[in-house]
Amino acid sequence: MAVTPVAQIVSVGVAGGAADEQVATVAAALARAGLPAASRVFIEDDEAALERALRADVSLTIVLADPGGSAGEIVRRAVAGTANVRLDDHRASLPRGAALWKVADAEPAWALEAGSRAFVVLPLGGSLERTLEAHLGPFVRARLAGRGLALRVLRVVGVGLSAIDGRLADWRGPAGPAGEIEVSAVPAEGEVWVRLRARGATPAAAAETLASAEGKISALLGDDCYSCDDESLERVVGQLLAARRLTLAVAESCTGGLLGHRLTNVPGSSMYFERGVVVYSNRAKEELLGVPAAVLRAHGAVSGPCAEAMASGICRASGSDCGLAITGIAGPEGGTPAKPVGTVFIGLAVRGAVTSRRFQFAGDRASVKWQSAQMALDMLRRRLLSDGPPGAESPRPVLDPPR
Amino acid sequence: MAVTPVAQIVSVGVAGGAADEQVATVAAALARAGLPAASRVFIEDDEAALERALRADVSLTIVLADPGGSAGEIVRRAVAGTANVRLDDHRASLPRGAALWKVADAEPAWALEAGSRAFVVLPLGGSLERTLEAHLGPFVRARLAGRGLALRVLRVVGVGLSAIDGRLADWRGPAGPAGEIEVSAVPAEGEVWVRLRARGATPAAAAETLASAEGKISALLGDDCYSCDDESLERVVGQLLAARRLTLAVAESCTGGLLGHRLTNVPGSSMYFERGVVVYSNRAKEELLGVPAAVLRAHGAVSGPCAEAMASGICRASGSDCGLAITGIAGPEGGTPAKPVGTVFIGLAVRGAVTSRRFQFAGDRASVKWQSAQMALDMLRRRLLSDGPPGAESPRPVLDPPR
Repeated sequence: MAVTPVAQIVSVGVAGGAADEQVATVAAALARAGLPAASRVFIEDDEAALERALRADVSLTIVLADPGGSAGEIVRRAVAGTANVRLDDHRASLPRGAALWKVADAEPAWALEAGSRAFVVLPLGGSLERTLEAHLGPFVRARLAGRGLALRVLRVVGVGLSAIDGRLADWRGPAGPAGEIEVSAVPAEGEVWVRLRARGATPAAAAETLASAEGKISALLGDDCYSCDDESLERVVGQLLAARRLTLAVAESCTGGLLGHRLTNVPGSSMYFERGVVVYSNRAKEELLGVPAAVLRAHGAVSGPCAEAMASGICRASGSDCGLAITGIAGPEGGTPAKPVGTVFIGLAVRGAVTSRRFQFAGDRASVKWQSAQMALDMLRRRLLSDGPPGAESPRPVLDPPR
Repeated sequence: MAVTPVAQIVSVGVAGGAADEQVATVAAALARAGLPAASRVFIEDDEAALERALRADVSLTIVLADPGGSAGEIVRRAVAGTANVRLDDHRASLPRGAALWKVADAEPAWALEAGSRAFVVLPLGGSLERTLEAHLGPFVRARLAGRGLALRVLRVVGVGLSAIDGRLADWRGPAGPAGEIEVSAVPAEGEVWVRLRARGATPAAAAETLASAEGKISALLGDDCYSCDDESLERVVGQLLAARRLTLAVAESCTGGLLGHRLTNVPGSSMYFERGVVVYSNRAKEELLGVPAAVLRAHGAVSGPCAEAMASGICRASGSDCGLAITGIAGPEGGTPAKPVGTVFIGLAVRGAVTSRRFQFAGDRASVKWQSAQMALDMLRRRLLSDGPPGAESPRPVLDPPR
């Protein structure tokens, strides 16, 4: 048995994006309760694979499964078997000793403690928020009583891993991690995560250690850190737009709609997101954005001038304050020696001022699309930050259409 | 030790979408080689969590990790420790006895066999296709020699799980799974997967059992099955469009770009995907699609008439053969008693003939967006199928703009 508490999340039987998202929700709840999940396991409704997962040497296993059908049966049987108790036919066939976690309007969850191990079974498919708040949080905190672990992830965009490692080296000094805190930079898709993990005799002591280190590391990261609270880049950009009462429209070529999709994943985004266009063809670029045929002829659709014309064009067409445009070669076909696969130009127009940048991304089609959207959001984010806080700016002028 | 071979995939240290995708690529390669992964495990670069994962009672563990940095070190040490061999300082610090798997232009992978267990370490980040084909496939098949396991997933869209279970019950009969084949229907995001798993004395025997069952089950599923070869719905729709030389444009409201994003995830989609518009505001619906103000006034933006006007409008504006439109309430705000959150209308125009359907989806914002895109793609797929094979139709007429 692990001496420090360790948790894992096991998702059973459902394939696809919804399960991933529920696992992420549970992982966030565990981290908030002070016990981040050490591993996430995805299995089909395969009893042998579930039994292997349940035998892992961890103190808490959270199982996410459809409570009905074969998955529910397999989970009840495997948890009872691992904990060495019998199924109780009179109580919905739960293992003996299991505690039901009920919240109104939701499928019940249940928990079983067996010696120094615990199992929690959550229903896949419904809303978990209240169950996590009302039951899982208190359960985890009670089992952690007297020990302290605090965790934070600072998300960094627009700077590479080695540069971040360099800055962290200044803080760490030559002797390695300081005190009871571990700091590590890990690569994520189109960004870098700086992970802080503090331990202490009590939760309060760990939180204090974390807060002290976080302040210093945040200062080292500056504006390159866009979130320290698990917020997505699109949500951060949305908050900056909303605070400044600015509207946004986007023009996408190689990202094909991903930028609009990400922006509109944020609830309430209709307050600032006016429209988007996906202009795959040159004809669409001319018709919808007024990109001059001369620009396309002289520089090509994948060029800085085209990206700038697209950004200006979407502002003009939509009457939005800000316009973001992406044009590039996502691959696998379409590259040339001068513009290989992964070449992407991003244009940004804010109230008539237009800029563009060229990027060269590595990776496959999906990765180039993701990194392109990421850098577009980051260009807008930095621009909004450099314009100062919302109160500091002049009153909103009538939009002067850029030419 | 497991008697039948069992494989797991362990992803170390990288968060985000790219790792998920590489895990999926490896899972597909394992399935093709006859040894589907029983579980997928995601951990951060945490040595204790990796050691727990490596101790699982499986015959093959595939580890995906960044070969450089701390993750690479942790993996080499943990695999060597689990296999009880030493690290060899003269050979890139690989465990003794490890075999290097080299392919040109790619980071090398390596494999270590220890008794009846094997470990394969693949580099995260680069292109894996050639390594999987040249090394992993032959390695797995050699270890499976003499045993047979064949697997197929039939993907079904537009029909619920219980209906599929009902049809499979006819095939299974009252006595349960037939012979050496297991058939199960599992819910996935916006679709249902029918999984076939056949066992035999040899790979050929398993493949024969599978093929026989697959024919019968395919007949039960009919056109509701869109793929039996791990192809995405957007790729299948793209193939239907390309075979018929039809072009497509899309108009999205509540999906915010997801439909365009999915369609353009398919390499070569620029052959048939002309453009997309994301019309979040009523003004954008009027300006870009010519949705009559009277329709918006009388029926609202979330209505069948609006979805049809959007589909016709995007066809007219783009000159495309087919237009798909989505308008609905993704939530969490914006629902009414008559049109609660999850109400979505999808419009389809093909060469001037326009239809629409109303859907009521359950789930959160992300899930409603996904299901909406899924049903839109399915409506187009069924329409293209109902028009018969490409050869059977009349020559392409000049587009007559619908009104």
